[in-house]
This record gives sequence, C-alpha cells and structure tokens, in this order.
Amino acid sequence: MYEDRIRQPELRQKIMTAEEAARLFRDGMSVGMSGFTKAGDCKALPAALAERARQEDLKLTLITGASLGNDSDGLMAQAGLLARRMPFQADASLRKKINDGEVMFIDQHLSETVEQLRGHNLAPIDIAVIEAVAITEDGGIVPSTSVGNSASFVEQAAQVIIELNLRMPLSLEGLHDIYVPAARPGRTPIPMLNVDDRIGGAAIRVDPARIAAIVVTDSADSPSAILPPDDETQAIAGHVIEFLSGEVKAGRLTPALLPLQAGIGTIANAVLHGLLDSPFAGLTMYSEVLQDSAFELLDSGQLDFASASSITLSEARHETFLQEVERYRSRLVLRPQEISNHPEVLRRLGIIAINTALEFDIYGNVNSTHVGGTHMMNGIGGSGDFARNAHLSIFVSKSVAKAGAISSVVPMVPHVDHTEHDVDVVATEWGLADLRGLAPRERAELIIERCAHPHYREELRHYFRQACKRGGQTPHMLELAFSWHERFRRARSMLA
Amino acid sequence: MYEDRIRQPELRQKIMTAEEAARLFRDGMSVGMSGFTKAGDCKALPAALAERARQEDLKLTLITGASLGNDSDGLMAQAGLLARRMPFQADASLRKKINDGEVMFIDQHLSETVEQLRGHNLAPIDIAVIEAVAITEDGGIVPSTSVGNSASFVEQAAQVIIELNLRMPLSLEGLHDIYVPAARPGRTPIPMLNVDDRIGGAAIRVDPARIAAIVVTDSADSPSAILPPDDETQAIAGHVIEFLSGEVKAGRLTPALLPLQAGIGTIANAVLHGLLDSPFAGLTMYSEVLQDSAFELLDSGQLDFASASSITLSEARHETFLQEVERYRSRLVLRPQEISNHPEVLRRLGIIAINTALEFDIYGNVNSTHVGGTHMMNGIGGSGDFARNAHLSIFVSKSVAKAGAISSVVPMVPHVDHTEHDVDVVATEWGLADLRGLAPRERAELIIERCAHPHYREELRHYFRQACKRGGQTPHMLELAFSWHERFRRARSMLA
Repeated sequence: MYEDRIRQPELRQKIMTAEEAARLFRDGMSVGMSGFTKAGDCKALPAALAERARQEDLKLTLITGASLGNDSDGLMAQAGLLARRMPFQADASLRKKINDGEVMFIDQHLSETVEQLRGHNLAPIDIAVIEAVAITEDGGIVPSTSVGNSASFVEQAAQVIIELNLRMPLSLEGLHDIYVPAARPGRTPIPMLNVDDRIGGAAIRVDPARIAAIVVTDSADSPSAILPPDDETQAIAGHVIEFLSGEVKAGRLTPALLPLQAGIGTIANAVLHGLLDSPFAGLTMYSEVLQDSAFELLDSGQLDFASASSITLSEARHETFLQEVERYRSRLVLRPQEISNHPEVLRRLGIIAINTALEFDIYGNVNSTHVGGTHMMNGIGGSGDFARNAHLSIFVSKSVAKAGAISSVVPMVPHVDHTEHDVDVVATEWGLADLRGLAPRERAELIIERCAHPHYREELRHYFRQACKRGGQTPHMLELAFSWHERFRRARSMLA
Repeated sequence: MYEDRIRQPELRQKIMTAEEAARLFRDGMSVGMSGFTKAGDCKALPAALAERARQEDLKLTLITGASLGNDSDGLMAQAGLLARRMPFQADASLRKKINDGEVMFIDQHLSETVEQLRGHNLAPIDIAVIEAVAITEDGGIVPSTSVGNSASFVEQAAQVIIELNLRMPLSLEGLHDIYVPAARPGRTPIPMLNVDDRIGGAAIRVDPARIAAIVVTDSADSPSAILPPDDETQAIAGHVIEFLSGEVKAGRLTPALLPLQAGIGTIANAVLHGLLDSPFAGLTMYSEVLQDSAFELLDSGQLDFASASSITLSEARHETFLQEVERYRSRLVLRPQEISNHPEVLRRLGIIAINTALEFDIYGNVNSTHVGGTHMMNGIGGSGDFARNAHLSIFVSKSVAKAGAISSVVPMVPHVDHTEHDVDVVATEWGLADLRGLAPRERAELIIERCAHPHYREELRHYFRQACKRGGQTPHMLELAFSWHERFRRARSMLA
C-alpha cells in the first residue's frame, strides 16, 4: 500500500491512526506543525489532539508556519489544548481565547520563528507534524501546498509525525526548494540572486529513525476567504498602479518593476488583480503567499515567475491548480518562510511590498494587528519582514470601516507594528501619499489630504494644526491622541 | 606641498579655501557630508557655508553619516542653511529648529540612507564633502576616523570636495574597508562571513575629474561627551553580564558570546566597560561606533577584534589612539555604515545588540527618540538595524530621569521606534526582564516587577490589572495610557 507515496518499505510499518499518533504527545510539549495561510496544514492530528485534550490534561505550545485551515486552531483552542501559540493565527475561537488571556500568543515576524528556535531563544521542538505528498526513497519529506517552517521543525524535532495526504497530487513533487541556513557562528550567505533561483533540495531531509508515525489523510486545504474586488479596492489598486507607472515614467523602475510581494487578504489581492489591466510586463513575485491574483497574472503572461512559501486559493482555483500543476511548474517555487521572508534576500532583491493596514496615523505609523489598540486580529505575519527591507513599502487600507463609523486614518495609532521609518507609501480609495524623503509634518499634510475619508479630514486638520502649536518633530496632543478610539469604544462611532 | 597626502600632482591645483569651495554650492542642492557620531566630519565647509547663508539665500538638503562635531550642525542651522536634514543629528540648536518645524528632519535607519539614494527614493546628491587623510596615486580617498556614508556619497555625487585634514595621521591609511553593494536588480551577496573579513578596498574610488576642490584643514574631531560609569549604569551592566553568563551556563552561548554591538552613549558604554570584569574572552564587536570601552577591552585582551563605522573617543583617548594606530591596526576595521549596519550581515553573524531606550512600556515597546512622544532628541540611528536582526536585542535605560520625576517604564510609550517584536531583553538598574518567548501579558508582569522604579511599580500594577479587565492581547486603557506623560507636561512630574 502507498508504494508510490511511501518509498521506503520499512516506513510503511509506521502507519497508524491519528488517535494512535496523538498518544505520542505529552503534556507541556512544544509542537511544530506544518501549515501556512491555511495551505499544507495537518488535517488529522489537530482534531485527534483536541479530542485527547477533552479527555485528559494535555496542554501544548503550538508553533506553525502561519494560520491553519479546517478550523483546527479553533478546535484545539476550544478543547483547551493550546497553552501557547506562535507565530500567527486567523481563527475566531482562538482569537477570543487569546484576547481573554487564556492562550498566550506570541506574535512574531514570520522569518524569525525558526531562527529563534535554532538560536535556543525558544524551547526546542519535541514533535514535528508535517503534511506530505510523499516520502522519498532516500528519506525526503515532500511537502504539499506550503513549506512554512516545516523544514526547520523536522531538522530540530526529536520525533516527526507525517500526515500523508492522498488528496494532494504527486505532481506537487519538485515544486519546493528547501534551503535552511546554518546555525551561527559560521553561517554563509544565502546564495539566492534571482527570484527563480533554486538553492536547495526538492524535499525535507529526515533520518527515517526519527519518523515516529505516518498518518494517512485525504482532505483538501480550506479555501481562501478573500472577497472579490469592489469599487473601493479597485480604486486603491488604481492609485497604486498609477504611482508605479509614475516611477517607470521617471526612470526609477523598469516596466518589469521589481519583485512584488503582496500580503494575504482581499485588498492586496485586489491590487495584484488590478495589474491585469496595467502596462507592466515581465513581472516577478517574491512573496510569502500566492493568492488567486498571482495565478491570474501567471495565466495572462504578465507574471514570469512567482516565489512564495504557500499557495492559498479560492475553492475553484485550488482544484484547477492541483489538476494542472504541470502548467505552472516552470514558473513557480515554494520555499521555507524563513527564505521567502529573509531580510538578507529581500534587501538584496529590492522588492515592492504591498501590505494591508488595519489603520495608520497621520505620520505614517501602521497598526496591522490590534483592533482598538488592544485586541489581536491575526498577527503581524510577514509584513514587518517585507516592509523593513523593501525597495518600496506600500500599505493599503480602505479609508473607513463599519459603514464609516471607524476611520482607518487616525491622529495616532494605539498599536504600532510598522514605524514611520518603514513606510514609504500609504493608499486608500481616496488617494495615495508618497512619503519618501518627507519629515513627519509633511507626511501629515499629505496623508490627511490624500488618504483620509472626507468626513474625517477637517477634524484631522484641526488636530494637526493644534498639535503643531505645541511643537515637536511629530506633533501630538497626547490627551486627545486616542480620543477617536475612545469615542468608538463608548459610542461605537469615531465621528464627533 | 602635501606630496605625501595629495599623491596626484595635478590635483594639488584644486586646493582652495573653504570660502572659495563654498561658492560651488547653489540654493536647493542636496549635499552629502562625511561625519558619523562626531568622527571624521568636515571641519571647514560647514562654517564657510553657514557664513554664505548669512549673506545670501542658500538652503540645502544636508545628508550625513550621522551626527557632526564642532557645533557644525548648530552653526548651519542657526544660519538658516539647512532646509532638510537626514538621517541623524545630536545638536541642541539644530534640535530646536527641528522641533520648531523650521528644519525638516528625516529620521532614518542608518543602513538605509544610501540605499534610498541608490534606488532614487531620495533626490540625488549634488556635492559630496568628505574629510580625508590622503588622496592616493590612483584616485582613492582615504577617510579619517569614520567612513559613514562617504563612499556612496562620492560614488553618486556630481562633484566632490575633499577636506584634507593634516591633523589626522597617515597611519589611519589601511584601517578602512570600503565595499558598496551594487544597484538592484542584479546585486550579489555581501561576502562578509566574519567580523574581521576585509571585503573591499582601503580607499574610496573617485574619478579625479569629479574632484572640484580640495580644502586643507588642521582640526581635531570633537571629543565624545559620555559620562563615566555611575552606580546605576554599573548596576545595569551587572544585570546584563549576569544574563549573558546565564546564557553561557545554559550552553546557548560560548564564553566568546557572539559579535557585540553597543549604541552610542553613556549607558551602553558602561555595559561594555563592565565586561572588563567579566569571565568572557575572545570577544568580537560588530558595531557602528567604537567608544572608549571598546579600546579598554582591546587593551585588556578580552576583545579580539572590533568592526565599526566610526571611532568616537574622549579627548585623552582620541589623542592616544591617533598616536598609536599601529597598536590596533590588526584588530580594527572601519566600514561604510551601510555594511556595519546591514540586515544581511547582522542576521548572518547573529549579534548581541545593546542599545539605549529613552523609555519603554510594560509590553516592551521602545521609544528611542521622541521626548514626551513629540520632541526629537537625536534620531533612531542604527538601533533599528541592530535590534531587528540581532540574535539578542537588549535595551537598557535608567529606571527614572529628572531625579525621579520621569519614569522610563511607562504604561504605553507615546512614540514607538522598536516594537515588542524586536525587543528580547530590557534592563534598568533594578533588574532585567528576559522577554523571549513571552506573550505581552507575561512581559508586562516581568517588566513591572524587574525593571520599574519601586516608586512607580504599584501604579503600573494597578494600570495593568485594570486594563486586563477590558481584555485583549495587549491590554490598555487608552484614556489613561498617556496619563503619566500628561501629568509631567502639566506638573513636571509623572508621580501621582
């Protein structure tokens, strides 16, 4: 059985049920699971572990690539399995537990988690659980639709459990490029010079003796939940494309631009979608996740090559992709998230980073994570990796939320994920503010006039003028800086 | 004349006075000047340009490595010469003009300024003014006590003015290692594997035709203004060394640690000074500036090698160093600040970064720059380059300022330079909080109990407890988050 997928005959003896595999875990263990933006996550162990946690005391530290699909995070959280979770999540039930202080959530730059494990700044991984397409003759784990942190989890874990997912076609083999930096000191440069370079092997090396269990599954990835472009996201896309066209016209970029990165979600997807109607060609992507828009651009021929750590698609596109992997094979690579997001590679390539802000302030500081400054939404993800090291760091947001009751442009953000130092451009459906080379006072005028919703502009102008009377590089009236957020907390609207 | 220092005879015809050289500048130009933490700055042109600005309309964008000495920034600011200034400064008069909104100050990560110039995100440099020890036969500018951004300024500028400083000994030649990354796309890895690697040439290449003037000077660098260690800085040093000793004991570091970086200023200098009495040996530094403490450690033999972009010393040590360069030659290198601070190199080496915070909050967010959240002190400098990419990112501060009227540990910082994602450890004279792998709520308890001054602890506990009742990943009561800063603004004390 499974000769084509488990190519070392003796390994087939390690096949067991998820329930049996779940018995390998002990209370207090640190577990590394595959899964990145719902792609390539483990389908069986999360449920089996949750079931065990409902029966007996079992609490784990769970580290993943990024978010899991299949409601796994919610299931595990509700069962009380998760004591500690990092570096990212996007599940409503888990989110509630985090904000209630019941699950300790460590929100990390996605490039840094395995670096911190490798450097012993985090406790070591006891068990790695990795979804695979196949295990090769020479002990290589072939990942599925994401690589995430799986290679480092396998390298570092005492035991490895493999979820062999029969739903994932064998044609995925060869799509991955597995490179793991050495420990320090003594590390050498990452030899990546171009987005389409292959610098590692096609599978994750593992000593078969460390494989403790193989669990066979047959389940699809959860589909992405992005919404189709609407008037506002199309307007944002239009502003970004107009800006990039200006850069080309001024000779600062060629029509191939520089490698593109786009964050997960509806707005960044819409911006990429908008490139279909742009004059740019010969594009490349060096991103962490590829959404539907990347495949539209591959299909249109405008995108030459896409590098990422995961592929997260709508249901229809996901099916098509799995059936037609061959069509994309020469133009696609999946890498460990440490490499897709690595400062060394990003700074060398000089990417154009497009990420979504929850809100930004008049000086260009960005909150990507904390609703109302306090409550975690999903996590910073890779936005910090990209924004800090990009050639151009662009943040996009609709100007208002909740039918206008919340302005995304505020006097001061109550939580900072990206400082003004790391933000070159901000855009809403109203317009775009090019902040390069500007001092905070200059940034404020542009952001207010170009990006804020007209309903909120006059009050922002007033705040800024009054704050300037008190002076400073970054004028503020601290007693009023969060008055809009306070208004919303009390009256459910930021409007005066 | 000057045969030993101007080794191309025809260049000697370009010698002129500073006043004559100042006539080469036109209103609105962008000027790149050498100088980093008061070392290797231009001594003559700033005064000559200030004099011209007092006579006629002359406004410039001034870009340097970092801060200038000799009151140059103040002189130029007071003369109205500076329209725009980046990426760092440390002058009282200029600071006032910045905070009054009269000079537009762009506060940048020190590794990024020349990257932004090279990528045309900033307007090009019209004239570079570089202090030099000599100009070689083959057209190489030998910098003096700093490299800063000088190599890229020279590469990019239309015209180059050299300040040949006779006070700087020729023995400085050979101390520098000049490597400039290529433009993108097409950049290759920076081939630096160890702190003592030399990867470039000893001088800054320049086409002699672009040298517009040579101005001969004979002036010393300004001495550093650091204070000697006191009880509190010694206590901070003690906590950091105890922490590092624990890392060695736990097998996470060797007694050689990892390459050290220490920010400019009294506290970071005191921490390094404290290493004299530590059990560590075979140390290395990969920093942006070397202060007195680095030379004490070189002299004691505990420091094997030091790499930086500038040398900023007390008056006595500066004199000794210039007389005894030979003694240090094999254990010292000065690099462009883009390389001393480069994310690629820092992440590869895995440095231990020690930087000073103006204040930090109970969740570990750090304000390095803005007094009261609004008024610029000096600038972010390289602290962000180092903190983001370090193996360990440590921030230090005295727990109180102004005789206890200001707490450096606050409910929320009113300006964020370093987010909790980039801060592993914080320490004051009271103790050290190891924040690795902790969620914000856990960080808060540690920071309050270990680092806050006892006079402020109970109110911080109360704030945190009350905030937790409202829930959230990072609990806050926004209406009270800045109440301490407001108290200080009104009553000159944060104490209730």
